[in-house]
Amino acid sequence: MKIRFFFVLSLFSLQILLSQEPVEFVNPFIGTSNYGATNPGAIAPRGMASVSPFNVAGGTNKLEKDSQWLSNPYVHENVFLTGFSHVNLSGVGCPDLGVILAMPTTGDVETNHETYGTTYKNETAKAGYYAVELDKYQIKAEVTASTRVGVSRYTFPKGKANILINLGLGLTNEQGGMLKINSPSEVEGMRTVGSFCYNNPEASYPVYFVAQLSKPSKEFGAWKNPYNYEGVEAQWMTYNDKVRIKKGFTREVVGDSIGAYFSYDFQQPTEVELKVAVSYVSIENARENLQKEVGNRSFNDIYEETRDAWNEKLSVAEVEGGSAEDKTVFYTALYHAQIHPNIFSDVNGEYPEIATGKIGKTEGSRYTVFSLWDTYRNYHQLMTLLYPGEQTEMINSMLAMYDENGWLPKWELNSTETFTMVGDPASVVIADSYLRGLRNFDVEKAYEAMLKGATVTENNPLRPGNAEYVEKGYLSVESGIAGPVSTTQEYNISDFAIAQLAKALGKKEDYKKFYKRSQSYRKLYDSETGLLRPKKANGDWYEPFDPNAGANFTKNVGYIEGNAWQYVYMVPHDIRGIIKLKGGGENFIQQLDYIFDAGHYDMANEPDFGYPFLYNFVTGENDKAQKRINDLLDRYYSNAPAGLPGNDDTGTMSAWVIYAMMGFYPVTPADPVYTLFAPKFNKITLHLEDNHEVIIKSFIKAGEPLKYILIDGKKHENLFISHSKLIGTSSIEMY
Amino acid sequence: MKIRFFFVLSLFSLQILLSQEPVEFVNPFIGTSNYGATNPGAIAPRGMASVSPFNVAGGTNKLEKDSQWLSNPYVHENVFLTGFSHVNLSGVGCPDLGVILAMPTTGDVETNHETYGTTYKNETAKAGYYAVELDKYQIKAEVTASTRVGVSRYTFPKGKANILINLGLGLTNEQGGMLKINSPSEVEGMRTVGSFCYNNPEASYPVYFVAQLSKPSKEFGAWKNPYNYEGVEAQWMTYNDKVRIKKGFTREVVGDSIGAYFSYDFQQPTEVELKVAVSYVSIENARENLQKEVGNRSFNDIYEETRDAWNEKLSVAEVEGGSAEDKTVFYTALYHAQIHPNIFSDVNGEYPEIATGKIGKTEGSRYTVFSLWDTYRNYHQLMTLLYPGEQTEMINSMLAMYDENGWLPKWELNSTETFTMVGDPASVVIADSYLRGLRNFDVEKAYEAMLKGATVTENNPLRPGNAEYVEKGYLSVESGIAGPVSTTQEYNISDFAIAQLAKALGKKEDYKKFYKRSQSYRKLYDSETGLLRPKKANGDWYEPFDPNAGANFTKNVGYIEGNAWQYVYMVPHDIRGIIKLKGGGENFIQQLDYIFDAGHYDMANEPDFGYPFLYNFVTGENDKAQKRINDLLDRYYSNAPAGLPGNDDTGTMSAWVIYAMMGFYPVTPADPVYTLFAPKFNKITLHLEDNHEVIIKSFIKAGEPLKYILIDGKKHENLFISHSKLIGTSSIEMY
Repeated sequence: MKIRFFFVLSLFSLQILLSQEPVEFVNPFIGTSNYGATNPGAIAPRGMASVSPFNVAGGTNKLEKDSQWLSNPYVHENVFLTGFSHVNLSGVGCPDLGVILAMPTTGDVETNHETYGTTYKNETAKAGYYAVELDKYQIKAEVTASTRVGVSRYTFPKGKANILINLGLGLTNEQGGMLKINSPSEVEGMRTVGSFCYNNPEASYPVYFVAQLSKPSKEFGAWKNPYNYEGVEAQWMTYNDKVRIKKGFTREVVGDSIGAYFSYDFQQPTEVELKVAVSYVSIENARENLQKEVGNRSFNDIYEETRDAWNEKLSVAEVEGGSAEDKTVFYTALYHAQIHPNIFSDVNGEYPEIATGKIGKTEGSRYTVFSLWDTYRNYHQLMTLLYPGEQTEMINSMLAMYDENGWLPKWELNSTETFTMVGDPASVVIADSYLRGLRNFDVEKAYEAMLKGATVTENNPLRPGNAEYVEKGYLSVESGIAGPVSTTQEYNISDFAIAQLAKALGKKEDYKKFYKRSQSYRKLYDSETGLLRPKKANGDWYEPFDPNAGANFTKNVGYIEGNAWQYVYMVPHDIRGIIKLKGGGENFIQQLDYIFDAGHYDMANEPDFGYPFLYNFVTGENDKAQKRINDLLDRYYSNAPAGLPGNDDTGTMSAWVIYAMMGFYPVTPADPVYTLFAPKFNKITLHLEDNHEVIIKSFIKAGEPLKYILIDGKKHENLFISHSKLIGTSSIEMY
Repeated sequence: MKIRFFFVLSLFSLQILLSQEPVEFVNPFIGTSNYGATNPGAIAPRGMASVSPFNVAGGTNKLEKDSQWLSNPYVHENVFLTGFSHVNLSGVGCPDLGVILAMPTTGDVETNHETYGTTYKNETAKAGYYAVELDKYQIKAEVTASTRVGVSRYTFPKGKANILINLGLGLTNEQGGMLKINSPSEVEGMRTVGSFCYNNPEASYPVYFVAQLSKPSKEFGAWKNPYNYEGVEAQWMTYNDKVRIKKGFTREVVGDSIGAYFSYDFQQPTEVELKVAVSYVSIENARENLQKEVGNRSFNDIYEETRDAWNEKLSVAEVEGGSAEDKTVFYTALYHAQIHPNIFSDVNGEYPEIATGKIGKTEGSRYTVFSLWDTYRNYHQLMTLLYPGEQTEMINSMLAMYDENGWLPKWELNSTETFTMVGDPASVVIADSYLRGLRNFDVEKAYEAMLKGATVTENNPLRPGNAEYVEKGYLSVESGIAGPVSTTQEYNISDFAIAQLAKALGKKEDYKKFYKRSQSYRKLYDSETGLLRPKKANGDWYEPFDPNAGANFTKNVGYIEGNAWQYVYMVPHDIRGIIKLKGGGENFIQQLDYIFDAGHYDMANEPDFGYPFLYNFVTGENDKAQKRINDLLDRYYSNAPAGLPGNDDTGTMSAWVIYAMMGFYPVTPADPVYTLFAPKFNKITLHLEDNHEVIIKSFIKAGEPLKYILIDGKKHENLFISHSKLIGTSSIEMY
């Protein structure tokens, strides 16, 4: 990755020229309600560690983590805080991580979170910073983070005070931890996490940590809540099922519900800083991460550095001429798009490989958290545009996974394949990046990996339905594959991407083969209903057919997380094809309008979220695109905790809003073309590689009809622009 | 400790001269029934590790570990074997340790002990060796051990074979382990143990291990049985409560029920050796123990070395002229007396200190497992006589504990104070050893430690009742101290020992003070019943008084593990005093006879087990001593699994039988005098320090009247001999 000296300079000038820096438009509370599943905790860009307030356990909380499918450590409506978790996922749909909880308290040591938890007030959240006041204790807790270290500053009142490290409580449903107190100011250990989306529990794995305090405690110890012993002997175990306080204990403690405490007796109000470094390799690496990344530097030092890092990341796009609310929605989305995929390798480059059981080493960064069913659609396109160095490293991480376990990732989380969702999305991402111009990866290896996923018909973890798909061109309702219609569409999209890459690499036969395969969704097109519908292996339509079944994540026969309306146009690689299938643009638009008007459009999930841009594919319908896009922005995105329509999906929803506000969208994965519409801002400056600036100006109001477009001063004759042209141009003007 | 070159030589000559070596008279099955609580597993003298067959869990076993207060990993009557545990206690009264279970199986990997357990046949047990054939698998399992490493040899039939390391199952009621597979032939980890006698669970602590296989496995993995998840989410956890097989997993696994497996596919019957090294300090130390103590040597090498070590230890006493049964009872008792206290320090001298949380280091050996309420009575006297170097190191271990936590031990187990039983017994042991001539310890420090235990009246963990005791001379029934009568007696015995040491050290005032204190049991003597009985704080007798209450370990108001009959003569330091109290020898003998004849005498516990020797304190009653002692030997001790009267009490019962068979007994702790009677054998040769031999010959049958005694050829005028005279003489002849 090239270092962008320009940004360092521009940041400096920005600070002089602008009253507000980009970070000041980040509101980490966006997405913390309405199942956005983000959290307001402190994190550095693509941080491995983060420090999130944890308020989903106990007390009078509205949403309790174990009472439903709750995938975030923090919910804005909740009121009862039980600590700060140090590894967290953002915007995902399943609970995992949310462990290594630190909690400051006063008075006697209490180890039960129901007892030590507290209400709170005066929350503040910024990029890289979160602060809160704990009602029960009169403690101010502030948190920040470097890439691999969470740093907290607790301001205690005079008197007895404690810092708890609780390894029992967590968002993950996995259990088991180990800790060892090394001194009055240090504890090390590990916590088991995994079985994301209730899958693959065999692969549950440890996250290691070292926690250091800025002031040695007066007293310390470990605690353990053993399980209730049910044998006859329980009658002699007066301590059965009671917490054990292991005062001064310095050996390993293991168990499902354990923790460490450090106690003080302050003569005056006192600040204590807590540094919690994590690693997925070892305790030793966690310690090295702490030393190299933070060392003896203070909370303020780390926050300043992380704030600068955020400013640099966010400065890639300067927006002007929108409301403060719009700017906040935009920069917060860009902030959310810089959380996952996150760095997985330690400062020394080590990381646990996928499936091999070995520790690998990388020169750059190993990335993790590839929610590819989501992100192949727009997220990685955005990264290729704004952060091409990062996107290249992400591709190289995916190729390293292929080296390690023989397959590209599907939904990779901390070097475990969670096998969540369907399709073969990594091929799409890699082909798309190549076709957009990224070259710093081994494309032949990537192509080999794609072919393997696309052609192996037995025991293929990426395409478990590949045998029937290759044979028939579609997955039948008897296939045993969840959502046979939508999964057929996903395989088609992948095959299209492989075809496009094959073409670029001069592999003509492959191009033909895979392009042909990519059209096979048509076998599921029912001209009677005008929808793609489930089919039996014998070629008959599956009955009964209810096009509404499957909305709101309910299970149904044909589709994953959606219904027939939400999937019918999820053929981004063949929009013109399906228009023909429908019998022309008029019918196409009619059905598209119906979907929106009847409320079938689901902004909260990926299958249909390209729909508003499809109007641009029919001449004369651009006004509707302008309106639909702007309406969706206004309706679903705002500067509020509920300001995301649903799970952020590791930045995919945020990528949608970023594109939608900038005035262009990459409708077809692996086809490096954007469709154009009016942006939300009057002026957007993209600071791309090699100091190249692209300035997009709009002279109309978002949502209003677009009359014409000038590119580098020349009138642009259609609503599409290639990626290479967009990044090569200097000026796009919308009138 | 001086190296006894003599024994090495004598061993060589013994092997030529004798048809059978001492080790051939060891039957490790003695004590494995009737709650003897020994086990037939392989152990080196005073070994930290041992390898015991584990047959107290599951199947159709008669005694199930969790169904009662069962304190041993093996019960002779049981039939269902579920592995071999690598740290074990011998002859104790509470369950602990019995963990790190190895199990060879064939076929597919099964991880549930109920499923993989098996019946067995053809058990063989020798000193340092145990072998068994597993019915279900046609596997022969042989085990041996060095001091810190258990070594097993499994002979597998052709086909699929597995070696399991199960960290879930165990005798201890503590839970929690960690493991990490390092290669196809190595796993390391730890297991939590502790809360011996259901006490002090806060101090539960880890035992670490490294296990290595002689042949790399073809496949390996870890397993984990998570607890049943009870949240709403359990509906999505199809794996809830099911074992997780983590094939090829090489990271840490923690949990209450975890294990590792190593699998093979043998083309022909194959032997695999398993070496499991333990340490209470760290995994690194366990590895060092393995490398330094065993290295690449074979099962046969280790067994040969351990067998030689046992022969050397047992050759300290040569017995002739008894039956093979008598010799087996004798040498097995000597073998059992060489198991605890056991070595606790690693080969590098490191060990966990008591209470400090620090790792200490010793030049010699740190000993552990001090069941001092038992062993102060005769065991340490025997060690002083036969193994003075070891006894000195045990005293130095006790003094190091005093340095570490400020108190002498009471019932110390692996550097935790279990606070089991009553009294202040360490003082007795140390004073006794000094008075018998041991000098290689800091007696002034020891004396200081004793004074602390005897004089501190607040928060005194050794004598929690000391305030009332010091004030009144006895503990009242209101004291809150269990067994106020017997505990008063225990404090008296300690005070007597301190007095004797004070006298030897020239501390006359202390001598007077503590001697006087040692007589205070008399305040509890009730001349009406002729018994020591519970008293109230106001000086009134406690009513109702049932002298029988408390037999067979039932709870009662006055006595710990005994009744008034079993405690009345437990004043070994004042036998002549209580004879006077009783109104003379005749009454004394009358009551002693009554106790035996009415069946109040309990051979299975310590309080009264000096009684048969008390006849010698009344002139003319020696014949009864001869008869009672011999009757008890015949009745309670035999070459059979039930050949111990009850718990071996870490060698205390065995010390009793050794003395009883040798013809002398140390009735009064801290009074270095033995009383004499006819031995079980015609000739006993004691090989003492500096190549000195003491030969005891008997020309009468055990149990028959003793006419006279010659010492070094001169007639001995009484039935007592001082320790110094005994070890200085060459010949004692009984006619």
